[in-house]
Amino acid sequence: MNYITLLTDFGLRDEYVGVMKGVLFSIAPHLSVIDISHHVAPQNIHEAAFLLRSAYPFFPKNTIHLVVVDPGVGTDRKILAVKIEDYLFLVPDNGIISLVIEEKIVNSIYVVENTSFFLSQRSQTFHGRDIFAPVAAHLANGLALDKLGINISYDQIVKLPSTEPNGINGKELTGSIISIDHFGNLTINISASQLYTFFCRTDTNHLNFSLNGKIVKGLLKNYSEIKKEQPLAIIGSRNYLEIAVNCGSAKYYFGAEYGNLVKVTVNYFDSNLDFSI
Amino acid sequence: MNYITLLTDFGLRDEYVGVMKGVLFSIAPHLSVIDISHHVAPQNIHEAAFLLRSAYPFFPKNTIHLVVVDPGVGTDRKILAVKIEDYLFLVPDNGIISLVIEEKIVNSIYVVENTSFFLSQRSQTFHGRDIFAPVAAHLANGLALDKLGINISYDQIVKLPSTEPNGINGKELTGSIISIDHFGNLTINISASQLYTFFCRTDTNHLNFSLNGKIVKGLLKNYSEIKKEQPLAIIGSRNYLEIAVNCGSAKYYFGAEYGNLVKVTVNYFDSNLDFSI
Amino acid sequence: MNYITLLTDFGLRDEYVGVMKGVLFSIAPHLSVIDISHHVAPQNIHEAAFLLRSAYPFFPKNTIHLVVVDPGVGTDRKILAVKIEDYLFLVPDNGIISLVIEEKIVNSIYVVENTSFFLSQRSQTFHGRDIFAPVAAHLANGLALDKLGINISYDQIVKLPSTEPNGINGKELTGSIISIDHFGNLTINISASQLYTFFCRTDTNHLNFSLNGKIVKGLLKNYSEIKKEQPLAIIGSRNYLEIAVNCGSAKYYFGAEYGNLVKVTVNYFDSNLDFSI
Repeated sequence: MNYITLLTDFGLRDEYVGVMKGVLFSIAPHLSVIDISHHVAPQNIHEAAFLLRSAYPFFPKNTIHLVVVDPGVGTDRKILAVKIEDYLFLVPDNGIISLVIEEKIVNSIYVVENTSFFLSQRSQTFHGRDIFAPVAAHLANGLALDKLGINISYDQIVKLPSTEPNGINGKELTGSIISIDHFGNLTINISASQLYTFFCRTDTNHLNFSLNGKIVKGLLKNYSEIKKEQPLAIIGSRNYLEIAVNCGSAKYYFGAEYGNLVKVTVNYFDSNLDFSI
Repeated sequence: MNYITLLTDFGLRDEYVGVMKGVLFSIAPHLSVIDISHHVAPQNIHEAAFLLRSAYPFFPKNTIHLVVVDPGVGTDRKILAVKIEDYLFLVPDNGIISLVIEEKIVNSIYVVENTSFFLSQRSQTFHGRDIFAPVAAHLANGLALDKLGINISYDQIVKLPSTEPNGINGKELTGSIISIDHFGNLTINISASQLYTFFCRTDTNHLNFSLNGKIVKGLLKNYSEIKKEQPLAIIGSRNYLEIAVNCGSAKYYFGAEYGNLVKVTVNYFDSNLDFSI
Repeated sequence: MNYITLLTDFGLRDEYVGVMKGVLFSIAPHLSVIDISHHVAPQNIHEAAFLLRSAYPFFPKNTIHLVVVDPGVGTDRKILAVKIEDYLFLVPDNGIISLVIEEKIVNSIYVVENTSFFLSQRSQTFHGRDIFAPVAAHLANGLALDKLGINISYDQIVKLPSTEPNGINGKELTGSIISIDHFGNLTINISASQLYTFFCRTDTNHLNFSLNGKIVKGLLKNYSEIKKEQPLAIIGSRNYLEIAVNCGSAKYYFGAEYGNLVKVTVNYFDSNLDFSI
């Protein structure tokens, strides 16, 4: 069984995602195709990069991850096939693979340019259907990467700015919101290991998290350690700092938007059980 | 072929549902995974319970129904594997299985606690990925229920209040809205059999349905027995009383919300063909 | 492997789509089911017809396209099984197949009326589950079309008005918006071949497209030939004229709605590189 995942900004209203699957199955009839998301904000490469990084390692080995968030469609931006450990990524060369590459060693990168694996009739506006899907299907059928085009090096591809925390200032660590999920949970670009490296692990009960003028005290283990509708900080399922509200939406509670800053400090004088602000 | 259905409140914006499928396929490569819905209102156990009850019997025998609407994630709430006739249900112990149990005989209930079938690295916030998905996949692979944990009895699990009609008062039957669907159709917690038991079957043409100050007359057989944009009452596809608007939205027509009361009475003096109010 | 696609107006909030799949797999366990869209505007036959026409040829041969946008559910409107070249269509007889039929030769049309292939318990409101799904599954299992009901001719089925451009007046071609996609791109009912037939191919740089009081100049090859947030005209992936905004939404830019008129004229005095209005 071969697996292909799809991550796009196409939404589900139109025929676009279905048609990509039609092309995939037309070439590789025994695929299993799994949607990661089609609701990336239009042309938002940063959001797609973070979703890809959070999702890819949970799929079977040899899964092909196909990502089409592609504001440069129809230009001369490259399309890349990137082998990283057990997975293959088929992506536009716009930095969308950056966060995966930050954490893993790249085995090889090929430019997708051999048109014999594309649909013969191609539009200028829908390369997901006309190029990405047929190439992915041929790869699932066993096509060797070096048939696609030339091999290039890591230095030759586009990279996004790092998701490292925005600022480190004495005993303060400042990050920003890089994802707001369906529940209104806020993911901050401070990974668990960065938090535990910067602060003492034993200090986590004494951390203060400041966002849009409100302060959250202490790093909890469960949403339900705090009363319903109250805010909390936690290491989320993506292994990054998360600001949430128990049975509620941190997005609404904090009036939060992408990019808002979160400042983390230590305060030994506060009890971690006093959540008054 | 083994089938697993998914019913969650995760939405489709994030990687959450895709990642659960990745875990499922990683353990049980030949599954067929079917989405029931991922748009249950966040933490709304009642809505999920009603969707589950309305959906489960239409799937192939031996389908595993995996439900993650789980406001207690990370607490000591139990996870249950429940065998009911031809189906297996993997659910949090929060009452979500209640409406299925009201109608069917439970074969056996096991508490899911053997961590050897969980992912080895587990978050506190995403048991769908870390516990539910791997356990469901092992069950699809043939794992016996008694390997999961101890057997408990029907009396030991959490149950929701019954969906019985809210009040029976002389010749009046009062129910409430328990589902508002995509079209704005309103499902009332009065089943077809309850309606036909309380009222004479021959009286259905003379029934009045009162909702938010408006009255609907007669129980119709088809949406199109009445003019477009006009309201009607009907036995819906879930076999419950439904208030709808032909080619329109009853939600908007009645300004209806979850829990609004619907009063059903008999009025022999009204013709069933006079829909003036 | 047999493929069935689904195109409905059911949305994804309720159990409806999942339950249709449950019925499909109960009868034909080895299917692959692919969603085209479930977000057709409720009861909008025109939109569904256009999506179907844009999607169907990209699927494997012998795919069964199952369409349930069916405002006449429960009435005596017919259900049709239509064989067209390599595909089979199972649709309500409300014109939804019209745009496919305009372009292709119909092999045969059967009325679906043999209840032995329906679910034995049927609702009046959900024929997708009770009739369409089981019939499609039986067809996927190899059931011959003539077992479904009588053969009828092309003249006996309902057709929508053609999507031909609305008006041709001297050197002006007038079309209207027939689709607004997730990105806010506007599809106009002027196909590439109609545009190239009416105007000289060499004139495409001199075309003016007028919509809601704003003018777009020239037919581009790529979104990115123009600056971000600027409007453009292009032949879209559906092979129809498309009005778009580079990295933006034409829907918002033009305040566009379904049915708005687009007037196309030639203007030799404008440079195709001058986009001032």
